[in-house]
Amino acid sequence: MKIGITGTGSYIPSIITKNEDFLEHEFLETDGSSFAYDNAVIIEKFKSITGIAERRYAEPNLKTSDLGYLASEKAIKDAKIDKEELDYIIFAHNFGDVAHGKIQGDTLPSLATRVKHLLKIKNPKCVAYDMLFGCPGWIEGVIQANAFIKSGLAKKCLVIGGETLSRVIDQHDRDSMIYSDGAGAAIVEGNTNSGEILSHTSVTHANGEAYHLFFDKTYKTDGCPNTRYIKMNGRKIYEFACTNVPQAMASCLNESGVDISDVKKILIHQANEKMDEAIIKRFYRIYGKDVPEGIMPMSIHKLGNSSVATIPTLFDLVRKRELEDHEIKKGDVVIFASVGAGMNINAIVYRY
Amino acid sequence: MKIGITGTGSYIPSIITKNEDFLEHEFLETDGSSFAYDNAVIIEKFKSITGIAERRYAEPNLKTSDLGYLASEKAIKDAKIDKEELDYIIFAHNFGDVAHGKIQGDTLPSLATRVKHLLKIKNPKCVAYDMLFGCPGWIEGVIQANAFIKSGLAKKCLVIGGETLSRVIDQHDRDSMIYSDGAGAAIVEGNTNSGEILSHTSVTHANGEAYHLFFDKTYKTDGCPNTRYIKMNGRKIYEFACTNVPQAMASCLNESGVDISDVKKILIHQANEKMDEAIIKRFYRIYGKDVPEGIMPMSIHKLGNSSVATIPTLFDLVRKRELEDHEIKKGDVVIFASVGAGMNINAIVYRY
Repeated sequence: MKIGITGTGSYIPSIITKNEDFLEHEFLETDGSSFAYDNAVIIEKFKSITGIAERRYAEPNLKTSDLGYLASEKAIKDAKIDKEELDYIIFAHNFGDVAHGKIQGDTLPSLATRVKHLLKIKNPKCVAYDMLFGCPGWIEGVIQANAFIKSGLAKKCLVIGGETLSRVIDQHDRDSMIYSDGAGAAIVEGNTNSGEILSHTSVTHANGEAYHLFFDKTYKTDGCPNTRYIKMNGRKIYEFACTNVPQAMASCLNESGVDISDVKKILIHQANEKMDEAIIKRFYRIYGKDVPEGIMPMSIHKLGNSSVATIPTLFDLVRKRELEDHEIKKGDVVIFASVGAGMNINAIVYRY
Repeated sequence: MKIGITGTGSYIPSIITKNEDFLEHEFLETDGSSFAYDNAVIIEKFKSITGIAERRYAEPNLKTSDLGYLASEKAIKDAKIDKEELDYIIFAHNFGDVAHGKIQGDTLPSLATRVKHLLKIKNPKCVAYDMLFGCPGWIEGVIQANAFIKSGLAKKCLVIGGETLSRVIDQHDRDSMIYSDGAGAAIVEGNTNSGEILSHTSVTHANGEAYHLFFDKTYKTDGCPNTRYIKMNGRKIYEFACTNVPQAMASCLNESGVDISDVKKILIHQANEKMDEAIIKRFYRIYGKDVPEGIMPMSIHKLGNSSVATIPTLFDLVRKRELEDHEIKKGDVVIFASVGAGMNINAIVYRY
């Protein structure tokens, strides 16, 4: 049975925060001391590595579940399905609904239930649950939907990835400039004519890597010691990703039986442009090839890293020809790949 | 293929909080006013309805992931499997790791990753994710493991349910006396001789019911308005559960093909003894029968409602003959059933 994606939607918040907006921020070293150079230098270096020029923040009245709902409405419409036919709503996130100006994540009820509530779906057999798997959560949700359909448990699933990282960042941490808000959603169906999951791979590295991304207090020494923010060991993540993501992608591609030269696009998690380029280079090197031109659509310059929302948003933009001159045609093979907290890596080889 | 549970383990925290320990608490009405009667009356009424005499709170140095780890170690040992063979670690919870005395839940990395880290599992193909589905999360995790095994994605899964509700309760809310801490775990395997999932049912009611359990501020009018606690509309939950849980259980039993008279035990979520008795009575009424003696093992009197941990802990206690005179013998049919935030209901008919 063919299982594929029949519709996508995304919600890109309207608030644009540019790199210049961080010029007056008080960035601090991890020990709370000041940097020896000024913010203009920090921002320039940041941009040259990550590629990020601006990012989006959710409107104060919206929470992650709202963004997920807005993306889901579009995906349902795009797939031309009756929402009452959905067997599952899978919402991948990591921090729950964090209200603007608050610090606690709210997951009672689950964000998937909130989306079901907002969509006004009546059918109780539409099972709504949340899934936490770091940035690769949306791809993992698609893999779970695929398993449910294969096992006969479901026919149609809505898979959402959403996050409001702007509400869990330490203003004194320069890494905070990476993070962004958004949501993306897709309808995954069996017996579809519109696409097919050819293979998938997932791994969790939880030894020395488990805490490369973690929750910790602000770098500001007189800041509240009880409030925690998203923190990362960027260098270790970079090394980890460059070593392990190409391997996972190759393992997935080999399982699919597709030749490397038949891959038309690679949609990779957008956390750092230099890192993504290094990963793709190493991936092609496994096959003794150079990276083909235009293989990797990038949304990071204007959208930053919206965690779980990144891949479904990127896919939605490319499908709808809203990302420069990138396009995907029926029959094209696309690789989705992500890496993030866990440390988790996953990939899907997909025939569009 | 037969898919069943080959090992279980639970962690019951050592700190016992008795009903008398609430005598000096300042319980308040929802509007912040005082009750017209004293705590002894509140506690007596509470006990006569819920059956709860005492509950367990996690030791201050332990978090939900630690409880889950301690339960998992026992389940792995009980199943006599090599931990490196696990394909999945599924951790069902709702609030993440809330440190003693703190208010933020920490899910970075996921609790499943933390357990994998503590278990020192090296195999990266052991995929670790968290799942949020209210109190029925552990049963839902078993249903997901079942689907993964059926679809060929996995052979052995560790499914954990854990929670430290004592850290998300409003001390001024008399409902806070219900909640408890703990963790339970099980190994779910394919091709097992030790048991079989015969059928399962899951539903999410997300219309008027979505916010029967919710996160809100303390009843204390001068308390922090930004800190949120677990809150419930007890009466509505009671009505919802009595109406919908018996139906879901009957639908599951009918699908299994097992005759009602062949059901040996019903392991139901422990939130309220009177509610559980009413559910079971209505369930048997569907089949025109009276409730058989000793059908429903109860742990609520001493363990309270530990949310996701309740069913796996109860199952572990009954399997190991640690709950009064209850026992399950090979071949016995057992029904697992749960209800909670979402509002979610699920059930499994299981041949032991």
